[in-house]
Amino acid sequence: LSGAGYHSESKAREYKQVCKRACLKAVDRLRAGGLALEAVTAALLELEDSPFTNAGTGSNLNLAGEIECDASIMDGKSLNYGAVGALSGIKNPVLVARRLLSETQKGKLSAGRIPPCFLVGKGAEQWAVSHGIPACPTEKMTTKFSLSGYKRNKRKMELAEQVETKRRRQSCGRENDFGLLKPVGEFMMEGKDNNCLDTVGAVVVDWEGNVAAAVSSGGLAMKHPGRVGQAAHFGCGCWAENARDISSYSTAVSTSGSGEHLIRTMLARECSTAMQTENAHQALLDAMQKKFIGSPFLAGEDCVLGGVIVLRCCSEDMQALLVEFLWSHTTESMCVGYMSAQDSKARVRILVLKVSRVYEYCLSLQASRPTFPDFLLEQWLDSHWRSKVEFVDSGKQVTEAM
Amino acid sequence: LSGAGYHSESKAREYKQVCKRACLKAVDRLRAGGLALEAVTAALLELEDSPFTNAGTGSNLNLAGEIECDASIMDGKSLNYGAVGALSGIKNPVLVARRLLSETQKGKLSAGRIPPCFLVGKGAEQWAVSHGIPACPTEKMTTKFSLSGYKRNKRKMELAEQVETKRRRQSCGRENDFGLLKPVGEFMMEGKDNNCLDTVGAVVVDWEGNVAAAVSSGGLAMKHPGRVGQAAHFGCGCWAENARDISSYSTAVSTSGSGEHLIRTMLARECSTAMQTENAHQALLDAMQKKFIGSPFLAGEDCVLGGVIVLRCCSEDMQALLVEFLWSHTTESMCVGYMSAQDSKARVRILVLKVSRVYEYCLSLQASRPTFPDFLLEQWLDSHWRSKVEFVDSGKQVTEAM
Repeated sequence: LSGAGYHSESKAREYKQVCKRACLKAVDRLRAGGLALEAVTAALLELEDSPFTNAGTGSNLNLAGEIECDASIMDGKSLNYGAVGALSGIKNPVLVARRLLSETQKGKLSAGRIPPCFLVGKGAEQWAVSHGIPACPTEKMTTKFSLSGYKRNKRKMELAEQVETKRRRQSCGRENDFGLLKPVGEFMMEGKDNNCLDTVGAVVVDWEGNVAAAVSSGGLAMKHPGRVGQAAHFGCGCWAENARDISSYSTAVSTSGSGEHLIRTMLARECSTAMQTENAHQALLDAMQKKFIGSPFLAGEDCVLGGVIVLRCCSEDMQALLVEFLWSHTTESMCVGYMSAQDSKARVRILVLKVSRVYEYCLSLQASRPTFPDFLLEQWLDSHWRSKVEFVDSGKQVTEAM
Repeated sequence: LSGAGYHSESKAREYKQVCKRACLKAVDRLRAGGLALEAVTAALLELEDSPFTNAGTGSNLNLAGEIECDASIMDGKSLNYGAVGALSGIKNPVLVARRLLSETQKGKLSAGRIPPCFLVGKGAEQWAVSHGIPACPTEKMTTKFSLSGYKRNKRKMELAEQVETKRRRQSCGRENDFGLLKPVGEFMMEGKDNNCLDTVGAVVVDWEGNVAAAVSSGGLAMKHPGRVGQAAHFGCGCWAENARDISSYSTAVSTSGSGEHLIRTMLARECSTAMQTENAHQALLDAMQKKFIGSPFLAGEDCVLGGVIVLRCCSEDMQALLVEFLWSHTTESMCVGYMSAQDSKARVRILVLKVSRVYEYCLSLQASRPTFPDFLLEQWLDSHWRSKVEFVDSGKQVTEAM
């Protein structure tokens, strides 16, 4: 369960609580015999319903002061997928994505039409309502926080635009190649005082060894209406793929951060592909460095922000599942929680990169205890076990848990 | 330039003409010193403006009788990308995608906001208009053909739904596992009499060796409002990537066919990746068979329909560019045109798979003369040259040019 972005200390407690409840909801479904797909949906519902996360209720408002949500879900067993983008007026976007996925599995529509896997905007809302998912007035999803954040951001934007206009006038005739001045960094929407948490997501493995992943986001604060981020993009927001044979790993990935960067790097799928080599730590580290921070697709970008949670497992035989859970982020902080069906409660951490500036590239990589019940771990290999937190520095940055 | 789908003989002539004009427009831009990105846009504008293609003017109507377009464009040099989905009220969707791409290259928006690369629905329309692209009443984009096609499809759907309801009643208590009966094949939207042409696209290499690709589509006939197909999906509708070093190829790919299948297989990017091995024919054949027809992502599908055009080139040194142009399709027919800056006119073909049923998997693979001016081909390797049409049968199917 992830939320990459900045988490102020005052909000940290609430955010940790939400994360714990989401873990518990997922595990409850697993305990009741539910499959990974159901468990991951249950976790997302809890995360969306919290007013503290930037998903569902409490989502960032767009330029027009409206809520438009992105969400997607993927089933590692069938490889089916469902997604919604720029969706307004539905309390739980992940439910619509989930329903699109299950409708896909029912085969063709009347007259041989192929069922959609990706719906956006008004059409997505109509589809949801016609499939029994109730509409929800946007006012009910807007919170005091999101509204005050919107007002603050709007003032910042106006101020930034005034300053830019002034600078442009003063430097008339001295423009750079683009005929444009770089915007002023101090007005960044991401910052300490406005608490723009990002995308939430979850990854789950069930008793049968199936993996599933889901992700949901209100998108960037002050985004243009109609903007769709990575959370609705196949291969970018989440990925889940069961192992095809005994020698390969099942992987589930969920991403969070700057949507455009996560789209152009297809980070969820790239991480999944990378996780097929033996050393999970090194694999994720390499993926984050080569496929994200150093990606040729982001060559011109000065600030590559994102976080991923990764679950991978392989079955040595029917009785044993070897599970690893890892995460990594370049954002200032990321909140991560995890729980196995045998745990009585979830473990939640907010990891903070202590750096001089947010946009220096930092990378923290950590693998936790396996999330799977111990009795299924008889054949757990010592070589796979990583109980120690590991820190990987790409400079002088230090990562520590709050 | 591609349009995979069914092309009736009566429309073939018109379609070939459009294809020729589009080639000429692209080459005109190249001759005037334009780069690949400009040339590919010029070709797409011509294809969108034709009432005979399912893109821009003359697009298929959705369930609600409206036009909603998808389009995307990718620049192989910068790897930048722009896309619009479910866009109404704009005559040339590719222009909006193109503008999104160029805005991305200008850097951050005011207050440090990241510019969007993907916009959908009403928000996309508003963005376009605010960036100087004029709105166009939907009535102007609707043609006699698209309207009569809509009416015919609507009747078919109603008939199919009546039949299905009747069958469901008769077989009450004898439903299959899903509690649903398979829809009746004879009512398929794709068919001889309604001329649902699919996505149009183009791939271009310019004098500097930069590649670009673009794609535009009105989507499936009778699609649900808000449905977004592969033409708006990063990695699925088009792909362009300049060679990173002397030993690799630059590739540009554009896809056409059933959007959901092309999304779930990420066909454009997969084909691009596959084209890095030496034998271009075999590479595309393998990609179509392993990554599309036989893809684990489409395991449950009985009818995998799609087509791709692929351009790849490598530079032996600054003076020589080796260019190959290939295409492949599993649809009943596909129209392809190609032209080099030294040609006086384009060569256009409609390839037809002669099969008993549309949905038997067929694959035709063909590489043409290189599309690059001869004086740049001094170092062209004989081993790369393929002037002969090759047919690859996956059964008894025969492919022939109309």
